[in-house]
This record gives sequence, structure tokens and C-alpha cells, in this order.
Amino acid sequence: MIAGVIGAAGYAGAELVRLLAGHPGITGFALASISYEGGRIEHIYPNFLRRIEAALVKPEEVIPRSRVVFAALPHGVGEPFAKACIEKEIPFIDLSADFRFDRDQETFTAWYGKPFVHKELRSYSVYGLPELNRSRIRELAASKKVIIGNPGCYPTGASLGAFPALAKGIAGPGTIIVDSASGVTGGGREPIRSFHYPECADSLAPYKVGAHRHTPEIARNFQAMAARFAGSTQGPAVIFTPHLAPMNRGILSTIYIPLSASWRPKGVPGGAPRPPIKEIEEKAAEIRGVYADFYKAEPFVRVLPAELTAASGRVRQSNFCDISIHVDQAGTTLVAAAAIDNMVKGAAGQAVQNMNIIFGFDETDGLKAVPALF
Amino acid sequence: MIAGVIGAAGYAGAELVRLLAGHPGITGFALASISYEGGRIEHIYPNFLRRIEAALVKPEEVIPRSRVVFAALPHGVGEPFAKACIEKEIPFIDLSADFRFDRDQETFTAWYGKPFVHKELRSYSVYGLPELNRSRIRELAASKKVIIGNPGCYPTGASLGAFPALAKGIAGPGTIIVDSASGVTGGGREPIRSFHYPECADSLAPYKVGAHRHTPEIARNFQAMAARFAGSTQGPAVIFTPHLAPMNRGILSTIYIPLSASWRPKGVPGGAPRPPIKEIEEKAAEIRGVYADFYKAEPFVRVLPAELTAASGRVRQSNFCDISIHVDQAGTTLVAAAAIDNMVKGAAGQAVQNMNIIFGFDETDGLKAVPALF
Amino acid sequence: MIAGVIGAAGYAGAELVRLLAGHPGITGFALASISYEGGRIEHIYPNFLRRIEAALVKPEEVIPRSRVVFAALPHGVGEPFAKACIEKEIPFIDLSADFRFDRDQETFTAWYGKPFVHKELRSYSVYGLPELNRSRIRELAASKKVIIGNPGCYPTGASLGAFPALAKGIAGPGTIIVDSASGVTGGGREPIRSFHYPECADSLAPYKVGAHRHTPEIARNFQAMAARFAGSTQGPAVIFTPHLAPMNRGILSTIYIPLSASWRPKGVPGGAPRPPIKEIEEKAAEIRGVYADFYKAEPFVRVLPAELTAASGRVRQSNFCDISIHVDQAGTTLVAAAAIDNMVKGAAGQAVQNMNIIFGFDETDGLKAVPALF
Amino acid sequence: MIAGVIGAAGYAGAELVRLLAGHPGITGFALASISYEGGRIEHIYPNFLRRIEAALVKPEEVIPRSRVVFAALPHGVGEPFAKACIEKEIPFIDLSADFRFDRDQETFTAWYGKPFVHKELRSYSVYGLPELNRSRIRELAASKKVIIGNPGCYPTGASLGAFPALAKGIAGPGTIIVDSASGVTGGGREPIRSFHYPECADSLAPYKVGAHRHTPEIARNFQAMAARFAGSTQGPAVIFTPHLAPMNRGILSTIYIPLSASWRPKGVPGGAPRPPIKEIEEKAAEIRGVYADFYKAEPFVRVLPAELTAASGRVRQSNFCDISIHVDQAGTTLVAAAAIDNMVKGAAGQAVQNMNIIFGFDETDGLKAVPALF
Repeated sequence: MIAGVIGAAGYAGAELVRLLAGHPGITGFALASISYEGGRIEHIYPNFLRRIEAALVKPEEVIPRSRVVFAALPHGVGEPFAKACIEKEIPFIDLSADFRFDRDQETFTAWYGKPFVHKELRSYSVYGLPELNRSRIRELAASKKVIIGNPGCYPTGASLGAFPALAKGIAGPGTIIVDSASGVTGGGREPIRSFHYPECADSLAPYKVGAHRHTPEIARNFQAMAARFAGSTQGPAVIFTPHLAPMNRGILSTIYIPLSASWRPKGVPGGAPRPPIKEIEEKAAEIRGVYADFYKAEPFVRVLPAELTAASGRVRQSNFCDISIHVDQAGTTLVAAAAIDNMVKGAAGQAVQNMNIIFGFDETDGLKAVPALF
Repeated sequence: MIAGVIGAAGYAGAELVRLLAGHPGITGFALASISYEGGRIEHIYPNFLRRIEAALVKPEEVIPRSRVVFAALPHGVGEPFAKACIEKEIPFIDLSADFRFDRDQETFTAWYGKPFVHKELRSYSVYGLPELNRSRIRELAASKKVIIGNPGCYPTGASLGAFPALAKGIAGPGTIIVDSASGVTGGGREPIRSFHYPECADSLAPYKVGAHRHTPEIARNFQAMAARFAGSTQGPAVIFTPHLAPMNRGILSTIYIPLSASWRPKGVPGGAPRPPIKEIEEKAAEIRGVYADFYKAEPFVRVLPAELTAASGRVRQSNFCDISIHVDQAGTTLVAAAAIDNMVKGAAGQAVQNMNIIFGFDETDGLKAVPALF
Repeated sequence: MIAGVIGAAGYAGAELVRLLAGHPGITGFALASISYEGGRIEHIYPNFLRRIEAALVKPEEVIPRSRVVFAALPHGVGEPFAKACIEKEIPFIDLSADFRFDRDQETFTAWYGKPFVHKELRSYSVYGLPELNRSRIRELAASKKVIIGNPGCYPTGASLGAFPALAKGIAGPGTIIVDSASGVTGGGREPIRSFHYPECADSLAPYKVGAHRHTPEIARNFQAMAARFAGSTQGPAVIFTPHLAPMNRGILSTIYIPLSASWRPKGVPGGAPRPPIKEIEEKAAEIRGVYADFYKAEPFVRVLPAELTAASGRVRQSNFCDISIHVDQAGTTLVAAAAIDNMVKGAAGQAVQNMNIIFGFDETDGLKAVPALF
Repeated sequence: MIAGVIGAAGYAGAELVRLLAGHPGITGFALASISYEGGRIEHIYPNFLRRIEAALVKPEEVIPRSRVVFAALPHGVGEPFAKACIEKEIPFIDLSADFRFDRDQETFTAWYGKPFVHKELRSYSVYGLPELNRSRIRELAASKKVIIGNPGCYPTGASLGAFPALAKGIAGPGTIIVDSASGVTGGGREPIRSFHYPECADSLAPYKVGAHRHTPEIARNFQAMAARFAGSTQGPAVIFTPHLAPMNRGILSTIYIPLSASWRPKGVPGGAPRPPIKEIEEKAAEIRGVYADFYKAEPFVRVLPAELTAASGRVRQSNFCDISIHVDQAGTTLVAAAAIDNMVKGAAGQAVQNMNIIFGFDETDGLKAVPALF
């Protein structure tokens, strides 16, 4: 089938084309770019030469040719295309934030500064984190009218790293802290000073501390999971700090989750810190078991064995989310580390995964590559 | 005067020689290396050619020639040299952990697996974080018998980032979380797989989660500051997670400190996260002011203005610690980011600063360079 | 069919497993490692978790299980396995230098310091650069006894960059200079000081100048191509300088080829250098056309248009060799730049390409991925 | 004395301020920026906080306050400031190309597309490569009217790497090939796509092949040296290929120089390449000796011993040029590798060196730092 990609010249759009090029169900492309209309994808990214060579047309021309449409556009631009797709019963997978907040226009507007364009489209939309909403995605797909609000990169790793703890009562009351670092592709293709090589190479720094737009998305996901499984009506408070790391791809999130009383290891002495004792290790192993069980049917979540920590380099170019489980030496806090490739599971790969669910492909189609070794 | 460096062939030792080469009070060197005895510093590091060209002698030969002795040795090896220096009234500045815990042999042994060698030397030793112990360093220096336990790299940034909050009652009850990432030089000069270029380039990962030896040092520093200024008998609980980042130098620590009730901004609405409001920004500004005031006489701590976040790249090759102050959008937590160069303020530079204090040099002598711009 | 890989724990072996995992004709693996016998591939490279999980057996156990055997071993170790495969009529694809020199034991011994182990095996071996020897590979494959001497990484890029010039009389008399830079994976997986992150990050340096073992392989390839097409009995002299570049993967070779009299552009003024004139650009375009024509049937060679220069980043993770064609402003020298991924076209990918030729698969099977965009 | 810097907000200008901040003869600054007039240097580069905090004024205001004026401006902009300085007898050190070609307006115009603005200023100007023109710099300084055309980054390394061979008859007839790679700071501070982190990280590529503006400067320098020492009326032909390397700083130039008949090693067998023999090594040692002797009085040129190759990482942050000497295995070509820091010896450091010569400071003042170890 033909895949349409609107916004194919941006990093997420181009990565999507690259992944779809290896998908057994995709036979061709209709590519559009607002900025590069009339150009060709292989001129913008010569990597594509001899693989995908295609003109970039107007967005309007993409929809009639495609059986699925992806949009990798700035926030607030894509709703008209979503509308057109819904009318034609073409699944629409949106990589912007426009459909990530369901009907919650208030939160969207508070953070993104604009109202919904076509409010009514939210009847057909679902937040496309398969590990949270797979059955709803299938339901909408069956109805023929489906819009995917493809998740943000940071929320994907943060959510997957915390979900089992929230669902299974491991998380106790208190704030969850998500400390994340992303590679520079997360900032997109436009050259701006912060991403100029000499400005970011060999340096690490936080940015938008306490003010990043992915915070409400993380909080909403935490709440959704806590509500569904544990019946909580309120999710935990969240503090989220993103950092820019000197690497091309990858997000590593270190997530600090207060342990509920019943999940705290017994027999941990108080006082000055000491190296972790057996009781700590055993509790970590138990939690690791819960995580492994929780994700046992998930094709893209790997709960790592005790001897490994999550590393962004080990999921590079893949749709995996690697999670390692640790308990601090005082036995009060679960420290979960989650690694994803920001451009794959954090953007284009997850979009392909959503397409696979919608069309009943094997969920790993187009996403079977072993993560790059280096 | 002649500076002796035992362990000059390791990264910290060599960086020390590099810094001392630019110190107006140092006229020559006596360099020793256990592994490279008989070699020459400029053969091991050809960077030194035409600047410092010197043979590496036995450690025993260094002491009689030197007016100050630095040791950059593995933990547990340097005490005999410390003893010899004390006997000759030569200041001994130790970059290992041996003298970082004062008389607290129990903690040292729990984490480093060995007892003190010469317990009695602790009468002459002080933990050499000038921002905490400058006056005690001077006292011991005046007594002619002084051993500096030069701080660990992570504890330096973490402590400086939290001190004013602890001293001024900004920190409330609850655990302080220190999330840090270090450049690869922190792992030393020996080639091991984790630091092999293709294994760590383009990747970010935590390591030794909840189990890093710098945890008790951080906790002790927090307690010391809380005790001295605020009269607390007990310091806060600490969770510390180090990460390896794909860069040569630098540590960025993001520190999450629960705000005490009196320091929480008023008028912050509850519920779902929203972008920070004026009340949050004002409280952050107030705390920033406290930090700036606290450090106003410190030559190496820069409390950054509101529009900047700490970045490891901005203190590269310098002895500065940059601190940026943020308050999370719910108003419950101070997020302080602290950046140092792990090899300078985190090791060799701080050792020079300690020497300057001991000998009454200007504290910035040898440490005046503008941080590398790139 | 089952693919056997001896030496699967090294970088080239592991990359081979990664590529074969996506090959439609490979249904399973038999993996061996001399150093890690008894271990598991996914423990050594956790990237493989959930994709390829397999025990590493003894090399002897691999052969009987496999329909094709790859060896990624140190030079001089694999001949006994080659012999065993020939006896069983199993194609043997050797990534070491052992079979790269055909019957020329003298050159092999001069550079690699050892004699051939089983001299007679050279009746069945061919240097596996498909662009040079595809038909001979097919002939041997048809005979059921085939050993591939898979090319070295530097010779692959250098040869492809120079072949059309040699074949079509563009190259005149005089020395060809090959100036190349490689990513650090070229040095293999063993941690040694030169490849320790802080020693090679942010630095570029030549190594083994005039003395690298790939020199005779490059010279032999140049001669072979000159001889076959142009009837030369002697190839050009070659100077080869490798450099280590601070990146994981990729080789960029800049090749300086003296133009033959008939290929020099006319009308170029002498004297001081000036910016290239129309005559230069036109001659470059003409040569580019010859290159494009020469490679028109090659699935993995991309001759770039005038506006692009070859960049190692654009062939990353792919089996492509990108070539850009330039003429110096005095009109005397062809400057060809050739980029490959050292681990793919320079090692594992080329081995897969050879397997595809031997077994009659589509030559791009397992090698269809679009080069990584970043 | 007060140093004026016009163009202080660019990379070269800021690096100059950083170096001058450590110069014992500089007591203050007058800084100007055309783009950031009215701003402050420490806002543009927060690295400067607490070290150099200064407003950026209009260029016109700089001159009256300064005893030396540096200009780090785009080509073709600075001549009016040069004129004003000459009138006031203030030394003017220009980091643009405006004064690099002496009276040769033709070459300048051919490559830079504009005529000289004040042709007559060339009576006072000299190409500021101290190793070539130190005595002329002194002469002009004595006359009180001096303009320095500070050399380009590539020409500096290329020239120093070839000078002794040209001066001493080691270079024979034939083209000299200069193959260079530069760190990304060479492209300046403005964010453009080629220097956007994800576009250049982990990749190496040539650019402007055969067409880079530094070619005529290199050729002129070669000719000047050949003429002065060897009496040649014509310099060698030059081919120059620059590459962009994924690192912040540094240039590594590999220079291929045909050996004159009398400098070719004897007794080198012809035929296929073989590893270098004793005769080759001895000739390399002899040439190395000539280089060492040639530069024995130069404070910033280090001719490396046989066991080292030049590496850009070993001169980082310093004004050194490291040169390693090699002879190819056929004995026809000298391969000299030259490493500089593009921002120091290739720009700001050389400008300081020129100032030191003009004012009679020690030539290493402000430039004594040991190269950064990592």
C-alpha cells in the first residue's frame, strides 16, 4: 500500500520514510513538504539516493494517493489534513502534539498556546502509546476513522519506565522525578545556535527546567496508568528535567519513584549511606520481575537483567525501550532507567508501530532491525 | 617552589602538572610514577613537549625535593607518603579518597573495603573543599602539619549546588536526589572496555546506580553544611545516580531539593502541571539571590542569572563551578544544576586551590584561565 | 539456510550477525567464538536481546551445521576452517587477510609475517571485491568449492574510487595517493590506549604512515584493474596514509590520480592558482559520466552529482560506496573522494554481498536499508 | 596596555580575548562588535563571566582607547579601521584575508571577489607568519606603521609542514598535495546547516575540493620559502583538499612532497610495495633532523621524534604546530603531517604571537599553556 508522509523533509518525517522503506506492506510513497514543495527527498537527504527517490508534492496531493497518512509537522498545522483523512476514512498518524491530549483542550492550550482547530476530531483520536492504548487503537481502526496522536519522545521513555510501578502499587505517594537527556536530533533539522556543533559538542546541560511541554504529557500518562490499574483518581506529581547531550540520537531517562510502604525492603539499617545490601538487591529483583511480567507480551520493551543498566547506545536505530531497575541503598526509592532512540520509539518507529496495529500487520514489521552495535 | 607529584602519569596527576606549569609560585617539579618509574612525562603525554620535560622518579625521591607534595594514586596506597610528609612538615594534598572521611573509618571501610593505614594522621587532615573548610585548612597550614583529602569529582559539584539551600533553610525535610553525568576522563587513563571509544561514543547510560562510592561523601557534606549553619544534627537522605556521557570532560549534576514550607511559593494552583507562573519565577529569583549572596566571596562559584542554565561546556578547562537555580512548576522542589570540569574543580584544580590556601597564594593563582570556549 | 559465523564476538563478526538477521534467506545461526566459547552473543552485545539470542560454540561445531561459513578471525588463524569447508563444499567467506593475495605468498608474508598454512587452498579462493571479481566468484561458486578473501576496509573504498580512472585511461603515469580516515571501530573491540575515548575523541591523526598493511592490497587492486581493462602490465605506484578520526564508523578516502595527457582539460591558464574555470568543471563532469557509466550496473556504488561531495555520514550503516569526482584547479589531477561504512561495505556487508553472489540471492538481500540519516 | 578587538563576538575574536586575558602585558580591553554593538561579551559567551566582563562598543570607539587593535571581521570590511590605525601609529592585526596577499590584488580579487579598498596600505602590511616573516614584522613595527595580515588556518599548518623541505632542497619538482581536515569551529559561529550537530557529527567529508580560498595563500607561501632559501623563481604546484572532521578544534594536514633526486633514499627495491626498510627509516630520520634544525629557534614548532605522528588533539588549546616526518615505502615522497589548533596557531594565538613580536614581548607571552591533555 502507499504511505503518505506530510512533512517528509524534517528529521522525524525523513526517518519515517527510511523505516517505511523497509516495511513489507508498503509499496510506495506520496511525500509532501511545505517548505520544500517541488523538491525531492533524495536531494534534501542524499542518503536516500538509489533507495527512495521521490518528488515532494503539496500536502493536498498526498491524501488521495495514500492508504495511510503520517504528518510530521509543527504543532497546530496538521488538523485540516486530519479532517480530510477522517472524511475519507484514511488513518491519520500525527507526530505533532495536536492529538496527544484527547479532549483536554485546556492543558493543550496552556502549554502550546493555541486552541484545537477541529475540536470534534477528538472523537476519532487516541494517544498512540501502544503499551497504554493498544486496544483503543484497534477499536478506532475497526471503526475506519482513526487519528493517532503519536507520543512525544520524552513521554515515551518516561512512561514506559514508570508504568509497571504505577499499575502494580509499587509507586507510593510522592513526586516522581524524571531526569532525561536527549541527543541533538531531538531539536530538529533547522540550524539554530544551541545545536551548532561547537556549541553543543563536549557539553551537557539542562534546558527548559520545570517548563518543558512534555511535562503535562508525562503526568497525564502516569495518571492514566495509575487510574486504570490501581484505581487512583489522581496521578502522582511529576518533575521533569530535560538535558541536551552531545550525541546524535537517543534518550536516557532516569526516573525516581518513591516506593510504597509495602514495597520497601525490610531490614535496611538507617543512618549514613552504605553499599546496597542483599535485601535491597532482592527487592530490586522482585520489582524487575514485576516489570518483566508486565511487559511480557510487548514486542518492544526489554526489561534488562540485574547486571545491565539501560544505555541509549544499545537501542540506537531501533524501536526498543530498554529498562533497568534499581533500588537506592536506603530502600526508599525505585530508580528506573529507560532508554529509547528518540527518533524511532520516540517518533517515527512508534508511528510505524501504530500503523501496524491499525492495519493488522505484525507489530514488528519494518521494525525488526537489531539495534546498531555502534 | 618545587611541587612534587606522586602519580603524575595518571589523568589527574598529569592535569595537575599542566595546571601547576602555569602557576606563578611553582618553579619546578619532582614527578613520580609507580607504573612508569624511569620514564618521562613528555613521553607519556607528548602534549608536554617543550613545556614540561621531566623524568619520573620513585615516589620516595619526590618528598625530599618538594615543598608541597600532591598524590594522585589509587585509594589506599598513599598513606605512607602522607606520613613522611607530615614528619617533614611538608603539606600533602591527596587526590584519593583516603583522607576524605576524617576520622570516620567505618564509612571509609564500608565503601572502600580497607581500613585506614595510619589512623593517627587524621589529626592533621581536612576534607579539602574550600567552600566548606577553608578556615580549617588555614589552621592546619599554620600548624605546619596538613593533609588535604581532596574531594571527589561528583561530591564537589553536588555539594556546591546544594550548600546554600542546606545552610539557609531552603531545603526542607525529605530526600535530596543528585543526578549526575560525567565525561569519560572520570574513568581514568587505563583502557577498559566501558571507555573504549566505540562502546561509549554516542551513548548515555547510568552506572553503579545507588552504589557509587561518592554517595557517602555527598551525604557527609550535606550533613556538615546543614549542621554548621542550620544546627541540624542529621543531614538529609541522599540518592545519587552517576551517568557516563559521551564527552571528554565535565560533570553536570542536577539536584532535586524539597523546599521547606517557608520557601514554597504561595499561590501556585494545584492539579495538572502548567507552565511556571510569576510566583514560581519570583521564588526562584529569591533563592538565586540567596545563592549569590552565599557565594559572593568565593572565587570559583558562579551563580548564573535566570536566563542561563549550567552547562559543563562553559566551565571546561577551568576551576569554576556554575550553578543555575530553578523551581519546579508545582513549587515544591528546588532544582539546582551545577557544572564543573571533573578534572579541574573536580580534581587537579581544586588541589591547586588547596595549595594556594595553604601557602597564602592568591586563591586563583594558576587557575585564572577563561574556560575554553570550545 | 543456517549461516555459520566463526569469530562472532568481534566487531566485524557481530556486525555480520546483525546484517544476516535481516536477510530473507537466513533462517538461523551457528555462532562460534574462540575467546568467548560457552558464552552467548546477547550477553556480549546486549543490543541483540530479543533479536538474536544464541550460544557461542566451538568453531568445529559450526561447520557441520552451516550452509555457509563466515570467519572473522585474526589473520593466520582461519585456514583450517577454510580447509574443512572446502572438503564439505561449504562456501567459506573469510574476513581476514589470509585469502586476499591469491597465490602471492611473498607479498602476504612480507606484510603479515607468516606463510600460507594451506597453500593449495588458493585454487579455490578469490578476492571478494564484487566490482572486480564478480564473475570469478560465480565460477568458483558453481564449482562448489569457494573461498572468499573478503577485502580490507581501506582497499575497498580506495579501489572503487580509482577503478574507472584506471580502466578507462583517465589515470596517467605517476603515483596515486590515497589519503584515508577511518572511524574507531576499524581498530576492533579490544580496549587499547589508542582507542580509549579520551585519547581519540576530538583529535585526528595519521598512523602507520607509509607502512599500513592495506597498501599492497590497494596496489594489487589498482594493477588488476589497469591490467584487465587497459592492458597495462604494471599498476601505478601507490602511497597510502590512514588516519584515525573521532567517529564510530566510516572511511573517507581522498584519492589523487594524475590525469593522462588526453584527459587533461584544455585551456587552463598556468601561473598562480585561481578558482576553477568552466573547462575544469566540464572535464570533471565528463569524468563523472565515465564513472557513472562504469558503475551503472553496480547495486552499491553511487556516483554523486556535481553538487555533492562524498561524506562518510551518508553511507553509515549501509553497503553503499559513494564517490564524488573533482578536478584540481590546475587541471592536472583527478581528486576522487570515496566514502564507505568501514563495518559494512568495508567488512560485514561486503561479506553478505559475496554470499548473495555465491548463492544466487538478489545481491542486495539483507543490504537494502537506507543509510542511517544521523 | 589596552588591547582593542573589533569583531569580538565571533569565534576568532572571542578566542583572542580569552588568550589576551592571560597575557601579562595586557591590562584591559576595548571590545567591539558590529552585530552585537551594545551587548556584552559575557552575555554572548557566558564562559567569560567573572573573567572578562565588558561592553561591546562601536568599532570607532575602540581605536582611540587601544595601543594595539585586532580585527576579526569578514573579509573586505576592516580596511577603514586599518587606515585609522596606521594614521595613529597603532599596530593593526587583521585576522581576515584582506592583508594576506601583500600587493597582489589580482590573486585576492580572483578568490575573494573584491578589490583592495585602500591599496596604499600594503606599504605597511606584512603577512604575519612569524616563521616566514619575523624580521619584516619587526622592521615595520620599528617604523611605527604596521598591519599584520594574520594567516589563514589551513595555510599556517600546511606552510610550516613544508617549509624546511622547500628551503633545503628536499622537495623536488612536482606537485605538492595538501590534504587537511579541520574541526567545526573553523566554520565560525553562525549556525548553518553544514555545522548543525546532527549533520556533521560522526561524519567526515571533503568540501570545496580544488576550490578553497586558502589554496593561493598556501601556494604563495610555498613559493616565498622556495624563493628565499633556494633561489627558485617559481614555487611548486599545489593541490589542496580541505575536509570537515567531527571535532571542535584542530587541523591536521598531511602533506605529500615529491623528494628531489638527491634526497631519495638509495637501495630501495622496486616492484610491489613492501614494508619500509632501514634505508627509508634512515632517510626519514635525516629529513627529520633537517626540520628540527630549521625550526630550532622557533618557540611554537615541535618536530616530533620518529615514534610519534602529529595529532590535532596534542596541540589543542595551544599555539604549537606539531610536525611528524615520514617517507613513503617506495622512497619517492616525503609525507609530512602538521597539526595545529585552528583557533590558536591558526587564528587568535598567531595574532597574539604577532603582537608579541611587534611590541617586543617574549614571543610566548600569553601562549605558554600546556596543550589541553583531553
